[in-house]
Amino acid sequence: MTSELSPAAVQVLESGISSSPQVEHRLALLRKWKIPQGSKVLEIGCGQGDCTILLADLVGENGHVTAIDPASLDYGAPMTLGEAQSQLKASPLGNRITFKQTTVEEFCQTNDEIYDCAVFARCLWYLPSPDILLSMLRSLRGRVRRVLIAEFLLDLQGDIAVLPHMLAVISLADINIGQPSDPWTSNDNVQSICSPKMIREMGRETGWELETESIIEAAEGLEDGRWEVGHVLSESYAARVESLTPEPRRVYAKMLLDAVKQSTATQPLAAVRALPTWFSSWKPSS
Amino acid sequence: MTSELSPAAVQVLESGISSSPQVEHRLALLRKWKIPQGSKVLEIGCGQGDCTILLADLVGENGHVTAIDPASLDYGAPMTLGEAQSQLKASPLGNRITFKQTTVEEFCQTNDEIYDCAVFARCLWYLPSPDILLSMLRSLRGRVRRVLIAEFLLDLQGDIAVLPHMLAVISLADINIGQPSDPWTSNDNVQSICSPKMIREMGRETGWELETESIIEAAEGLEDGRWEVGHVLSESYAARVESLTPEPRRVYAKMLLDAVKQSTATQPLAAVRALPTWFSSWKPSS
Repeated sequence: MTSELSPAAVQVLESGISSSPQVEHRLALLRKWKIPQGSKVLEIGCGQGDCTILLADLVGENGHVTAIDPASLDYGAPMTLGEAQSQLKASPLGNRITFKQTTVEEFCQTNDEIYDCAVFARCLWYLPSPDILLSMLRSLRGRVRRVLIAEFLLDLQGDIAVLPHMLAVISLADINIGQPSDPWTSNDNVQSICSPKMIREMGRETGWELETESIIEAAEGLEDGRWEVGHVLSESYAARVESLTPEPRRVYAKMLLDAVKQSTATQPLAAVRALPTWFSSWKPSS
Repeated sequence: MTSELSPAAVQVLESGISSSPQVEHRLALLRKWKIPQGSKVLEIGCGQGDCTILLADLVGENGHVTAIDPASLDYGAPMTLGEAQSQLKASPLGNRITFKQTTVEEFCQTNDEIYDCAVFARCLWYLPSPDILLSMLRSLRGRVRRVLIAEFLLDLQGDIAVLPHMLAVISLADINIGQPSDPWTSNDNVQSICSPKMIREMGRETGWELETESIIEAAEGLEDGRWEVGHVLSESYAARVESLTPEPRRVYAKMLLDAVKQSTATQPLAAVRALPTWFSSWKPSS
């Protein structure tokens, strides 16, 4: 890992913001996009900045990352969004990063700068509905030269160890359908599932042309699969399933939960592998 | 196949009621239950009688199969339920079979006979809701000595070729949630999914004790997986998905459909393997 990153980035990462497999996986993604040094990057849905710090390292001392997220700065545990972002700002790479608590649409209305690229690094499934991507892509027209989207892909790519993660996210997308008044839902890492086909359609509809797309398997040890499966197999999640209405929705959700359990019956949770990631790059359509 | 069946049964089967893999698979299931010759069997949800003819052969000339199904005798293609049942009645094994167009509850109210066993041979997922099994199991108390249930299991059992069937039935169960006024739905072979856990809970609740349970992989060539995947990938099914409301349900259903497509992207439809079958036997709890 160290050979891929600057000493400054390594120092930040060693302070413990992300696990090593998370860093490895994000680096593998970002490297595929070949973002040039000196780039001005707009990162969408930056969260705690796990990807922001790597982008800041990649763009070098003449580049800059503007990282936006509308989530409350109080959100997150054990560290809140605000605490994590402050820590990165105080690091040796902090002067290459600007965090803003805002949506893409708001940001583009109140800002004139042109960015070399907008990066969506696995933030779409966190949206309550995939359709929100439509207005984000529209706002970015004329404001960024390329759009780079990376998101999990709902496929096993031949590896059966991915099945529990696949079923867990299907369950999460289901339980988050039309439950806006449910106070639990906002904490789910997966609230809806956006397929490459949906993203391709939304890109075309909003004036973007697909340049490249490909699929990368999850790094060994990437925890996302285990995290989501553990979440779905928790007692509090079972209680949410039991409280679903109407009855046919509850029965369907129970069935999915049973399938997640069944998929982990013959392999330990530690053996669950995360879903592969689909990534794509887009330019304005002429 | 012929060595397992009487010449009379072979003659009926060779007239083309079922494909060879279907017969092989059903025989493998029924053999596991070791139903003795001379048994009086009540078969629930017999449909066209594909399993009925095998049961009639297994129970021998001193046994009998009463096969019930509430579906209209006009239902089914290319042969209707009524035509298929008439053909079996006219066969050399016909005198061992009684078909009745009725529900379990109705049948048990209007009939005093005690049966050696009730057989549910993969008919539960056809129910609009798994909960219907509750009242069926209650009705059977005191009327049958054993209950034998075989149903698909939502698991890959380590075989990735099963994934398209798994995703297709999840899609079917989803599209059939709370769409009772949809004229299409009644033709789906899968309308809800009942897991072994749900069946175990319903058995306990209605006074039945689980004696044995196990899992059997689908016979190679069993068409059910390809049938359901083909159905879900049809144009008419895509139109049903597009017409779903409200919007979040439509988006979720599209996502499942995309996952089915993705799962068949790298293997031909002919390579899709059917889900394994879970089967169990029950006695009255003391």
